[in-house]
Amino acid sequence: MTDEQDLGITSSKSHQTGDWYAEVVQKGEMADYAPMGGFIVTRPRGYAVWERLQENLDGWFKETGVQNAYFPLFIPESYLEKEKDIVEGFDPEVAWVTHGGNEELEERLAVRPTSESIIAPFLAQWTRSHRDLPLRLNQWCSVVRWEATETKPFFRTKEFLWQEGHTAHADEESAWDETMTRLDQYERLYEEVMAMPVMKGRKPEHDKFPGAHTTSTVEALMPDGKSVQGGTSHYLGTSFAEAFDIEFVDEDEEMQTAHTTSWGLSWRAMGALIMTHSDDQGLVLPPAVAPEQVVVVPIYSEDTQEEILEYSADIAAELDEAGVRVHLDDRDHRNPGFKYNDWELKGVPLRIEVGPNEMADGEVTFSHRPDGESITESREDLPATVEEHLDAVFAKLYASAEETLEGEIREAESREEILGTLGQHGGYVETGWCGDEACEEPIKDAIAAEIVMVPLDRDEEPIHDECAICGEEAEETAYFAKSY
Amino acid sequence: MTDEQDLGITSSKSHQTGDWYAEVVQKGEMADYAPMGGFIVTRPRGYAVWERLQENLDGWFKETGVQNAYFPLFIPESYLEKEKDIVEGFDPEVAWVTHGGNEELEERLAVRPTSESIIAPFLAQWTRSHRDLPLRLNQWCSVVRWEATETKPFFRTKEFLWQEGHTAHADEESAWDETMTRLDQYERLYEEVMAMPVMKGRKPEHDKFPGAHTTSTVEALMPDGKSVQGGTSHYLGTSFAEAFDIEFVDEDEEMQTAHTTSWGLSWRAMGALIMTHSDDQGLVLPPAVAPEQVVVVPIYSEDTQEEILEYSADIAAELDEAGVRVHLDDRDHRNPGFKYNDWELKGVPLRIEVGPNEMADGEVTFSHRPDGESITESREDLPATVEEHLDAVFAKLYASAEETLEGEIREAESREEILGTLGQHGGYVETGWCGDEACEEPIKDAIAAEIVMVPLDRDEEPIHDECAICGEEAEETAYFAKSY
Repeated sequence: MTDEQDLGITSSKSHQTGDWYAEVVQKGEMADYAPMGGFIVTRPRGYAVWERLQENLDGWFKETGVQNAYFPLFIPESYLEKEKDIVEGFDPEVAWVTHGGNEELEERLAVRPTSESIIAPFLAQWTRSHRDLPLRLNQWCSVVRWEATETKPFFRTKEFLWQEGHTAHADEESAWDETMTRLDQYERLYEEVMAMPVMKGRKPEHDKFPGAHTTSTVEALMPDGKSVQGGTSHYLGTSFAEAFDIEFVDEDEEMQTAHTTSWGLSWRAMGALIMTHSDDQGLVLPPAVAPEQVVVVPIYSEDTQEEILEYSADIAAELDEAGVRVHLDDRDHRNPGFKYNDWELKGVPLRIEVGPNEMADGEVTFSHRPDGESITESREDLPATVEEHLDAVFAKLYASAEETLEGEIREAESREEILGTLGQHGGYVETGWCGDEACEEPIKDAIAAEIVMVPLDRDEEPIHDECAICGEEAEETAYFAKSY
Repeated sequence: MTDEQDLGITSSKSHQTGDWYAEVVQKGEMADYAPMGGFIVTRPRGYAVWERLQENLDGWFKETGVQNAYFPLFIPESYLEKEKDIVEGFDPEVAWVTHGGNEELEERLAVRPTSESIIAPFLAQWTRSHRDLPLRLNQWCSVVRWEATETKPFFRTKEFLWQEGHTAHADEESAWDETMTRLDQYERLYEEVMAMPVMKGRKPEHDKFPGAHTTSTVEALMPDGKSVQGGTSHYLGTSFAEAFDIEFVDEDEEMQTAHTTSWGLSWRAMGALIMTHSDDQGLVLPPAVAPEQVVVVPIYSEDTQEEILEYSADIAAELDEAGVRVHLDDRDHRNPGFKYNDWELKGVPLRIEVGPNEMADGEVTFSHRPDGESITESREDLPATVEEHLDAVFAKLYASAEETLEGEIREAESREEILGTLGQHGGYVETGWCGDEACEEPIKDAIAAEIVMVPLDRDEEPIHDECAICGEEAEETAYFAKSY
């Protein structure tokens, strides 16, 4: 590839987070910018990370009754209009196909911004009896939202990859369980696969998905103090079912309206992952998603070359056999120092160094990414030892992200305190809130922070007695943050 | 779901192939028609088949050096125009995005009909040295071609799912090897997974992919005597590399132009699969792709219900444990006859019937789809026995498809013979051909048949001395057929 990695990362995570992120994404070979503003190219190393996230989530979905399907890329304008709330929510962001070949279309087609309005009619068609429920569909696809903002790979792009689940249920309880099952799976993906703690909550009423009864969310804290909506799971009540006639005959032969849900997680999760763990040396990836979990770097001189390369190849072969994703870097035209930097830039969690000392003593030297801890171990039982070290790397990453999050939830009791705390520290500010959108506005206007979540449980007692803004009785505990 | 399956398939495969196919696809729950002409909805059972095809092919790709990536859905018009041949080939079939939100775009964007023109610039960017080659990328995505023809699920749809591979190589040999490796993998998918023999060949010069040096193809024969292009692998020579500056520094520090390939297989493979094996009872699916490989149907009366259901559940659990995709049909509101028909309609390859006799004797009764062969076996070592029966079903399907193909290759030595043979039998007609497109035209005009392939090896001696049409010296052996 290019030699630009020789330069390494030139900007600083703490001082120039935006530039640093763009550099890490490009030099770590996750993505490049496409010729059209707002679009990116997901490079093989980036796509491999996405595939690992897909594999995990898709497996959990299938274990819990979800079936994959595929619905058309285009949605007729009249279908989008059937759910007025959706149109109001998405109309300004839709990419429109107006011509097919040389002909103008009679009805223009939206490139799907989300698929409720094309999937719901089929949920209606396939739902006849209570025996057909719950009906749980998911699709992995890309969607397009024509937002005119600066491109930020995985965070802000006009086209993005995601999964969207759409389900129909016989009653509220079943639909609510579904909503929470998917939210829990998103949380699990962050915590067990991406080594990131998240907060679970619910969007305030004025920030719900259009038409939803409840929009639940997992929120992840970024190192610059902003919150990322990491995945959302919507309980839609009967609003979509009423608009699209999703009805069924119950056990008593009575016609009933179904309750529906939808839930989605996009490649923004990858953006959050990259931003959370990476550092000024480049990409840092948890072992579960890294394209290569281990790189073996042989260190040799002319007279030891043959035997050290052989010893290294044996090691790589043994790990490969054991199912470890391992790469032997036997490039002869690069020295070990270059290789160390190169694989640090590319986020390989564990490096194995093999030099004459290691070979003589039947050992290997491990080096952990990101903290560079170096440990020499016996070469015996190598797959088990590697497993332990990968677990150790995961634990370090998780602990570091957890420590950051825990220190970044602060309380505030007045408008000035909210503004001061968010302005100074970022992170989350926990306050009492009366529930009125008007009390969010002064904060939004002043520093572009908003209520990113309230507690999931609607009956939970607010922590504070009074709304920090208006002083009226608090109805909820609100979490203010700046967000992506 | 609906009760329409009660009716079963009402049209006949041999007499009303088109209607029969549409019925099998819908009643077998593979797909439904979308509200817009030319688009379909791939239902969960259909998508599960596509996932099995993906899994197999993707695994082979990765074992042979291919990396997945993802490129934008849209291609700027000016990019498409860079490769004039592609524009000429695809322009009339492109869906155009002209508006984003409420704004008209400055440059309209094509919804990708294929991605050479957006991928090639990145192959150029990522190719610097001979060490970067071969560079092998693949993406799984959907593409859109605005063809104004009747919708036929999986065969003719404006949007279709496929994979498209794009590779760059240092020389012709490496690129040609790549072209053949992918063609062989397509053949393997048909033969080992889909139980379908195929013919490998090359498209005549006038029917190549625009800009290609060679378009190789696997062709599958459908039961109505038409040929389906089952997957194509193109050796593109240096034409794309020249148009998009894909160059590299070789070992002697000289600048060289790369050789490129592209290759694709679409969900048309699923259409060919469904059409080949299915019958008047419904869908027939080979074990490797069937969503359920085995269905267990308990046959009980009121007083045997409990113990037979328990025996059946044990069987299903044991098979599930062994990795067999098994479904226990314990629906109490349906009788065994209904269940037999239902699962035959849905293409489950192997049925296990469990009644009082089977239970008393510690046995199970197998029934094969499609031929209904019924065999009673001991319940001991059930996973191994099931494996054998699944293999037997596969062998039957393959043998039947092979027999059809072998009987459908006929020779002809004159225009009249070609027309007569194709008109009467369909299938393939093998003739001598001078190589001139003009000699294909009279056949095309008369009965819409064409040369679907010539032998892969350009040096292969033609079987016939003379062109069957013009009587000049034959340059090639041509295979005429009607095609999808």
